[in-house]
Amino acid sequence: MSTFGLIEYTDASAEVKAVYDDIMATRKTHYINNFWKAIAHDPALLKRTWEGLKAVMGPGALDPLTKELLYIAVSVTNNCNYCIASHTASAFSKGMTPEMFKELQQVVGMANATNKLVTGYQVSVDARYQPPLNLQK
Amino acid sequence: MSTFGLIEYTDASAEVKAVYDDIMATRKTHYINNFWKAIAHDPALLKRTWEGLKAVMGPGALDPLTKELLYIAVSVTNNCNYCIASHTASAFSKGMTPEMFKELQQVVGMANATNKLVTGYQVSVDARYQPPLNLQK
Amino acid sequence: MSTFGLIEYTDASAEVKAVYDDIMATRKTHYINNFWKAIAHDPALLKRTWEGLKAVMGPGALDPLTKELLYIAVSVTNNCNYCIASHTASAFSKGMTPEMFKELQQVVGMANATNKLVTGYQVSVDARYQPPLNLQK
Amino acid sequence: MSTFGLIEYTDASAEVKAVYDDIMATRKTHYINNFWKAIAHDPALLKRTWEGLKAVMGPGALDPLTKELLYIAVSVTNNCNYCIASHTASAFSKGMTPEMFKELQQVVGMANATNKLVTGYQVSVDARYQPPLNLQK
Amino acid sequence: MSTFGLIEYTDASAEVKAVYDDIMATRKTHYINNFWKAIAHDPALLKRTWEGLKAVMGPGALDPLTKELLYIAVSVTNNCNYCIASHTASAFSKGMTPEMFKELQQVVGMANATNKLVTGYQVSVDARYQPPLNLQK
Amino acid sequence: MSTFGLIEYTDASAEVKAVYDDIMATRKTHYINNFWKAIAHDPALLKRTWEGLKAVMGPGALDPLTKELLYIAVSVTNNCNYCIASHTASAFSKGMTPEMFKELQQVVGMANATNKLVTGYQVSVDARYQPPLNLQK
Repeated sequence: MSTFGLIEYTDASAEVKAVYDDIMATRKTHYINNFWKAIAHDPALLKRTWEGLKAVMGPGALDPLTKELLYIAVSVTNNCNYCIASHTASAFSKGMTPEMFKELQQVVGMANATNKLVTGYQVSVDARYQPPLNLQK
Repeated sequence: MSTFGLIEYTDASAEVKAVYDDIMATRKTHYINNFWKAIAHDPALLKRTWEGLKAVMGPGALDPLTKELLYIAVSVTNNCNYCIASHTASAFSKGMTPEMFKELQQVVGMANATNKLVTGYQVSVDARYQPPLNLQK
Repeated sequence: MSTFGLIEYTDASAEVKAVYDDIMATRKTHYINNFWKAIAHDPALLKRTWEGLKAVMGPGALDPLTKELLYIAVSVTNNCNYCIASHTASAFSKGMTPEMFKELQQVVGMANATNKLVTGYQVSVDARYQPPLNLQK
Repeated sequence: MSTFGLIEYTDASAEVKAVYDDIMATRKTHYINNFWKAIAHDPALLKRTWEGLKAVMGPGALDPLTKELLYIAVSVTNNCNYCIASHTASAFSKGMTPEMFKELQQVVGMANATNKLVTGYQVSVDARYQPPLNLQK
Repeated sequence: MSTFGLIEYTDASAEVKAVYDDIMATRKTHYINNFWKAIAHDPALLKRTWEGLKAVMGPGALDPLTKELLYIAVSVTNNCNYCIASHTASAFSKGMTPEMFKELQQVVGMANATNKLVTGYQVSVDARYQPPLNLQK
Repeated sequence: MSTFGLIEYTDASAEVKAVYDDIMATRKTHYINNFWKAIAHDPALLKRTWEGLKAVMGPGALDPLTKELLYIAVSVTNNCNYCIASHTASAFSKGMTPEMFKELQQVVGMANATNKLVTGYQVSVDARYQPPLNLQK
């Protein structure tokens, strides 16, 4: 469910259908998940979000599975249940193994702990870590 | 700087020195960064945190560089400046290229945006994404 | 539901009833929403929170609808489902149109993305934006 | 400063210059703030972010100043210092008065408090606020 | 420093001076910290915030030092540097020992880690923990 | 429920059973809550998390109930519903009274509000609160 309800394919405008078609073609699936059906009430947002996501999540210097893992790490830290559920499923479908999932959660738990220890102890940044980084170093 | 100041190696107790030695040996460096010197005022925390971090961040189903990227993703989402600075430096030293850094930031930005769109539109989780996941599917 | 359950009007103490009466009179409704019934177990908190809210959310330099939009922006960023549901309903009742809702979500999504890009790229504040602001400028 | 340093106009590629030119033309200024110079190391991100921002922050069902106020509300909730500094300056330049700023901060403070009271008291959403909203109601 | 600068006692209006006087009398000090001087540009906010804080942080079922510890725990989790610095100093002045500080940080680190493990593993609430709580149990 | 489902005692490996036994012995209960059953799919994480939690949450310079209060304060600020539900129940079982719960929520609400007012007004840290703290002062 969603604030304005979900727009199914058969009820969608041509503009929305075009995005749905591209999602299904890109993902090689007939399934459109609730997120897209919820924001389809704002076709401009739907289109910009999908095009941004497609550009960002495809292969590049990082492979698509690594990007899914990063998405999960952000979503867990933000406590976004929908995002965790959908991207965890997506990551498994892209080849994440249970062992990879477990190590991901370990890193997320550890990072959240040390983030707060650094903050609570008011640790200032080491001179050598101050930006800009000297990548020749 | 830090709430209680930083404990340098020469001023450290034997218990703290043992952790510092292990950090330097594991990381093949003579540098101990401010975080460890700040929490060294609590030797039990220092030891438990270092041992946890060493166990979590080493090679496994995910490689150490991927784990650094996840650490950065969490730290950016948490807005922890120290953690971003130190783990960005660490990731570059482990082989992160500028292109990888850029794609990481793209994913973090995108994930933070869609996390909030999902939330703002009050999207409920698709039945197929509800845990537990059927990994045979 | 709530930690201590919900206190209905007929079961409320005189102190709580007085706040409920003021909520209903101010909002021109007979409905008291769950939030107030949940915190009514702490009458001092109920009274202070309601009085603060009434003072803050009324007309002033910003109109009440703009204030509802801001409330939603905070609640989405904090991922507070109750708050999003109740303030979204409240904003619609105060005149928010679907178009306004959509633009609000666009801004919230965009701001959350750029907040993290700024953070991830470790951007320092431009000299001209440093406080205090020269409002004559 | 920034992870990779700041790219000044004179050092920018044609692709980056085109975005800088559009920022200056759209904002009627000769000033490019640090954020753009920092992410200009990733021209695709620069272009997509600027185009998204320009689309989102312009006039629509909500006026540009209201959108700036929403941006500040998100940035304060996320604790993003750069964003608070730059968007506060931007909002004043678009006509925010000190009184408006003050009411904005009041709402942000109040919303953050009640978000947590709702959460801490584990308040469930009233049936009438459950999505989807009946906008005819 | 602060968006509008800091209002010193000698430059304050009678309304602001009255709050400053009460802060100094209540805290048995001649020092007004920057927070109050920053929000004194909004006398109504200053007064409401101070009166709320005074009511909340005084002795009750929880002693004032425990309340300071809770304040720090929230501030660290929110990553609010000013709040961490000022409330850490305040807690020490109210009798927090270094050992108490250290245990506080341990709990905050641990809670932030397990919060995210719960979230990442999508754990549903045990039936016995669902509100409302049966306090007779 | 949980991503991989819950591991019951009778289905657990010897390694997991050993942790479950220690949880039950330490807590003087026959009940293992869902969190442990969910992360038991990663026995190393289960063991490290339990041992860390046992070390951190036991008596010390802070008593176990105070530590539970801090845990709740963090969990509310992080908006972790599972954690709030389980630690609120746990705190009541350790002696938290309804009055203590109420004052805890008051502090959490107040701290979240002032954290954001400090941030929104861009208040810089008073010189006297800058770390390191002079504890002799």
